[in-house]
Amino acid sequence: MNNAPTDTAATGITPEQSRVEQDLVDTVVASFDNTPDERLKQLMQSLTRHLHAFIREVRLTETEWNKAIEFLTAAGHITDDKRQEFILLSDVLGASMQTIAVNNQAYAGAATATEATVFGPFFTEHAPEIPHGGDIAGGAHGQPCWVEGTVTDTDGTPVPGARIEVWEADDDGFYDVQYTDGRVAGRAHLFSDADGNYAFWGLTPTPYPIPHDGPVGKMLESVGRSPVRASHLHFMVTAENLRTLVTHIFVDGDPQIEIGDSVFGVKDSLIKKFDQQPAGTPTPDGRDLGNQAWARTRFDIVLAPKDA
Amino acid sequence: MNNAPTDTAATGITPEQSRVEQDLVDTVVASFDNTPDERLKQLMQSLTRHLHAFIREVRLTETEWNKAIEFLTAAGHITDDKRQEFILLSDVLGASMQTIAVNNQAYAGAATATEATVFGPFFTEHAPEIPHGGDIAGGAHGQPCWVEGTVTDTDGTPVPGARIEVWEADDDGFYDVQYTDGRVAGRAHLFSDADGNYAFWGLTPTPYPIPHDGPVGKMLESVGRSPVRASHLHFMVTAENLRTLVTHIFVDGDPQIEIGDSVFGVKDSLIKKFDQQPAGTPTPDGRDLGNQAWARTRFDIVLAPKDA
Repeated sequence: MNNAPTDTAATGITPEQSRVEQDLVDTVVASFDNTPDERLKQLMQSLTRHLHAFIREVRLTETEWNKAIEFLTAAGHITDDKRQEFILLSDVLGASMQTIAVNNQAYAGAATATEATVFGPFFTEHAPEIPHGGDIAGGAHGQPCWVEGTVTDTDGTPVPGARIEVWEADDDGFYDVQYTDGRVAGRAHLFSDADGNYAFWGLTPTPYPIPHDGPVGKMLESVGRSPVRASHLHFMVTAENLRTLVTHIFVDGDPQIEIGDSVFGVKDSLIKKFDQQPAGTPTPDGRDLGNQAWARTRFDIVLAPKDA
Repeated sequence: MNNAPTDTAATGITPEQSRVEQDLVDTVVASFDNTPDERLKQLMQSLTRHLHAFIREVRLTETEWNKAIEFLTAAGHITDDKRQEFILLSDVLGASMQTIAVNNQAYAGAATATEATVFGPFFTEHAPEIPHGGDIAGGAHGQPCWVEGTVTDTDGTPVPGARIEVWEADDDGFYDVQYTDGRVAGRAHLFSDADGNYAFWGLTPTPYPIPHDGPVGKMLESVGRSPVRASHLHFMVTAENLRTLVTHIFVDGDPQIEIGDSVFGVKDSLIKKFDQQPAGTPTPDGRDLGNQAWARTRFDIVLAPKDA
């Protein structure tokens, strides 16, 4: 570890000043020496070193420190049961994706396992169960989209009974938790069948901005970044003795993939073809969609071993 | 800047894994490239690098990430007009003192200027004005303490008309903003006289814990740290064309100075003798304190040039 500015000549920081600053870092780090939990001690000491390195590197002004306190306060006050500004902040700083990257390291051996991406702030427990081929929309507007695939392990063995949670925004870009009437829509769970297959009717994903009426949105505006997420459909897949997968699928051809997903969630392996079907095209399950175009996609899910 | 773990053999991180992680850092840093304000761009890019370096160094788990989100959420929810958990957090991590250290660098030439320390969360605007020799207690309990000194610039020239804000806890360890009845006590402002002199009656400072019934208090408990601050009296001194000074004075002999001030605010130059005076000792201004011991201290204040 070397967090100290080393180039005195370039920075204009005198050795005496550098010593005062480093002494403070050392004192704060030492204050955690008696932490009973070794891991917590490591976390707090590393956090201290990196936080101080940031302050020293940018020579943070007191005005900027005040702005940071105000920002965190505003983020805290807009956060409630349905709005999570701190997750948004972690997402737009890439911290959520980096945490996922760090934790996928262990699965490098399972090269064929489906890649993970951000969880996001919109998952809710207790989404309704639907049967194979059921519809998750629950009244959410959008183009119907048939989604199917097979759940296997990394040996290619089908996984029956995997619990598949899916959730997505409507074509106005809103999740049900953003509705004012409290209804559940655009989310459900189902189970893979005896052969590991699953299928459901969802909505063709469309781009939408992350909630940007709060401090994180203001920050993105200040730095000239788009709050828009690449179109996606969320999955969380759990099965006995296999690692839980939290991921999305993205829509091949969505221009936002090039512009940049606001939370850095896109991985090439998760971009899927969504084939547009003209109105009147027969549906896989014989459902009558009337005079409406629809789409279909396939997403085969490969779960890593639990302790890989 | 080298935030990447470099010792693959020691860390078990493969070059491929390291590349994936570094690519993400680079992508997030680049997302700030179009920030119109150069300083904001620098802050966000540096913050990104250090935040990601922390996550990568400790190999942050998803459970730990969740705990961090929960911690920030709880800090946000306990914060209101009178309770500022994010300032407490910054204080106990030494970030407040490091910001002060970084900003005092410019005053290295003014070696005789009084040192600064943390602002803390308990200052309020509009404290009452008192005359020379007035009493700041306003009903707050504690041992009376005569505080006097002279305000000068770094050339030793007296500074008349300097505005001196003082605030402190009562002998139960509470500031007035922590009282439930809304009254103002233990704070006031006064002005230095034509010769730069000031004097007031305050309370002899006593040790008290920072508010520790919230997430920051829980954290301190988990790491085995005392929430107690070394006994102190707050000052903020402003004068035309001179740098505003935010500081405390500490009580020589207070054992908490050795144990460790919970916010790392102590500097040797700010530790002052508080001379105990037996009951009946004549007071400097002839005030009759009855059968009560009192204390006296001297704090000469040297203000740095505004743009030093």
